[in-house]
Amino acid sequence: MSTRLKYSLIHHDGNARAGILNLAGQQIETPIFMPVGTNGTVKAITVNELKEIGYQLILGNTYHLSLRPGDETVKKLGGLHHFMNWDRGILTDSGGFQVFSLGKLNKITRDGVFFQSHLDGQKISLTPERSIEIQENLNSNIMMVLDECLGLPADREKVQKSIELTTHWAQRSFDARKSENNLFGIVQGANYDDLRIESAQALMEIDFDGYAIGGLSVGESKDIMYRITNLIAPILPTYKPRYLMGVGDPVDLLGAVGSGIDMFDCVMATRNARNGSLFTFDGKISIKQSKYKEDHLPIEASCQCEVCQNYSRGYLRHLYQANEILSSRLNSYHNLYFFKKLMEKAREAILQNRYLSFKKDFLAQYLP
Amino acid sequence: MSTRLKYSLIHHDGNARAGILNLAGQQIETPIFMPVGTNGTVKAITVNELKEIGYQLILGNTYHLSLRPGDETVKKLGGLHHFMNWDRGILTDSGGFQVFSLGKLNKITRDGVFFQSHLDGQKISLTPERSIEIQENLNSNIMMVLDECLGLPADREKVQKSIELTTHWAQRSFDARKSENNLFGIVQGANYDDLRIESAQALMEIDFDGYAIGGLSVGESKDIMYRITNLIAPILPTYKPRYLMGVGDPVDLLGAVGSGIDMFDCVMATRNARNGSLFTFDGKISIKQSKYKEDHLPIEASCQCEVCQNYSRGYLRHLYQANEILSSRLNSYHNLYFFKKLMEKAREAILQNRYLSFKKDFLAQYLP
Repeated sequence: MSTRLKYSLIHHDGNARAGILNLAGQQIETPIFMPVGTNGTVKAITVNELKEIGYQLILGNTYHLSLRPGDETVKKLGGLHHFMNWDRGILTDSGGFQVFSLGKLNKITRDGVFFQSHLDGQKISLTPERSIEIQENLNSNIMMVLDECLGLPADREKVQKSIELTTHWAQRSFDARKSENNLFGIVQGANYDDLRIESAQALMEIDFDGYAIGGLSVGESKDIMYRITNLIAPILPTYKPRYLMGVGDPVDLLGAVGSGIDMFDCVMATRNARNGSLFTFDGKISIKQSKYKEDHLPIEASCQCEVCQNYSRGYLRHLYQANEILSSRLNSYHNLYFFKKLMEKAREAILQNRYLSFKKDFLAQYLP
Repeated sequence: MSTRLKYSLIHHDGNARAGILNLAGQQIETPIFMPVGTNGTVKAITVNELKEIGYQLILGNTYHLSLRPGDETVKKLGGLHHFMNWDRGILTDSGGFQVFSLGKLNKITRDGVFFQSHLDGQKISLTPERSIEIQENLNSNIMMVLDECLGLPADREKVQKSIELTTHWAQRSFDARKSENNLFGIVQGANYDDLRIESAQALMEIDFDGYAIGGLSVGESKDIMYRITNLIAPILPTYKPRYLMGVGDPVDLLGAVGSGIDMFDCVMATRNARNGSLFTFDGKISIKQSKYKEDHLPIEASCQCEVCQNYSRGYLRHLYQANEILSSRLNSYHNLYFFKKLMEKAREAILQNRYLSFKKDFLAQYLP
């Protein structure tokens, strides 16, 4: 499965793109949402259920898996695919974002980042080379370069230094690769348009298999995210996949698809599910509300998912109230189904040259 | 589905019985283990998975469901079968055992029991009539009479009074039934052989659809459980099902099958699973142990379940360590599969007149 990807642009409608990502022996239709499988499992969901819904590509977290069970252990157990019994595509992040958000960060040098594990306080270093080594031990189909993740807002001078470091790390990541697995560069530059462009251009000089936009969806205003995505996506290589990291909300997904993004990941689908927040095309509902106590209707009348075909809101509310594991299971299933359908509908609209009206109709119906 | 059951004794080998329980439109092969679905779900498992494993009859808890979401709510949502999307058999207990073990018990009178909910402290009374009303609202296929559950050891005089009360409540439960749903009596009498027999005889004078042995598996020595089961099971009506409540451990199950018991329930299969304790024919294993860290073998090499066919001990240990919901899912699935297979093997041995040697071989292989 470890062969280079091929992205075919099938059709575009404005900047929005419908493509085919040839990866891991599969034809993956884009735009695509990737469920997050932090610890070698998409939380509460089996690989068979992911297939049932139609997912072909999921995300694994390098930071978490390298700490527990350890990338050497995953390698000994046959790599991440075999370990978790998933024979479709896996993208792994570099671990950088989690070092910055979860670990106790001690130091950043030109060499790499030094931090303490959030699990046991162990002191660990993560260099571009080590990140690639971990990802090659996991043997993911798409690897990401280590990048520095700054919070927003950020001082311009600091950002300038940061993108220089990120480019340096990107080159080292590229040079460190020993496998045929794919590797994506990550555009940084905070909220500075010119620095974002500078970062993108520097990375495009390295022949990555795809390009991501990072450092967004970290608490900045939506305006900034939309502006940067709309600025950068169109200048990235036409015949390579474009990935907006950590996004997100259905409204943001459709905005970014409109800018020309092909790939997304976000914990929202499954995390919200576990908190009783369910996505529908009429907006989110909170299943814990008492008004659903005796409601015999499904989450969403028009939804064809297994959960909506078989269970009432009254039952789902009860499971949530009783803190039953089945609550997380059924809610996660429905939400993942929703995100899959949303991407399918977006693709269909692009192919039919009606993406803008599709998005407009969606926004009119969807109550955030 | 609310029609009277029919039990056919197909074959016996000593006291051990292989039967067919005609219930809820199904032919259910006995002896049978019933997974426990306390809150309207077998914990961590879907109804489709129960069917996949082959279960045809599960248990629901009257106490829990009457408190949350409330039996009236379940009734409004179509009864427990429809509520939880289960079209096979359901047995409900009377709620008595949980009142004694979970609720804050305030008073027992000839009328009934008075207690405070373990959820919100609400003061509630449970009479034989109310228990039947709840169970008829849930619309289970088999209902249980309200009985007094004494701990062991218990004073003889107290037990004597208790079985008189239990018989009185049993008659009132019988008289209170408005549906065609089945109703089982429950033999009590603690560890007194003569009182157990007295209780059984009094209940057999009432024409119940089946008979249970209660008040065992409550912390007494195994010897007492085996002695009482072996004393009472054989004197219960031959052409009605016999149910040993709350048992249990694989070794105890086989002991009780040997005494002529047809039905069992126990939370052990699923509770142990959530705690990482997995059943195999070689005994229990604790998946959390570090020796499984890099173990690529399945839980049990000879097991045909989905979990053993697809996942390694190394992966299952990791899921447990990472506190992933999938850990509870996969472990519960395997354990439920084990209990189903155990009962199937027991039945096969009875049909082939080799029950004792089967049990002996099992005990020789199984390390508790």
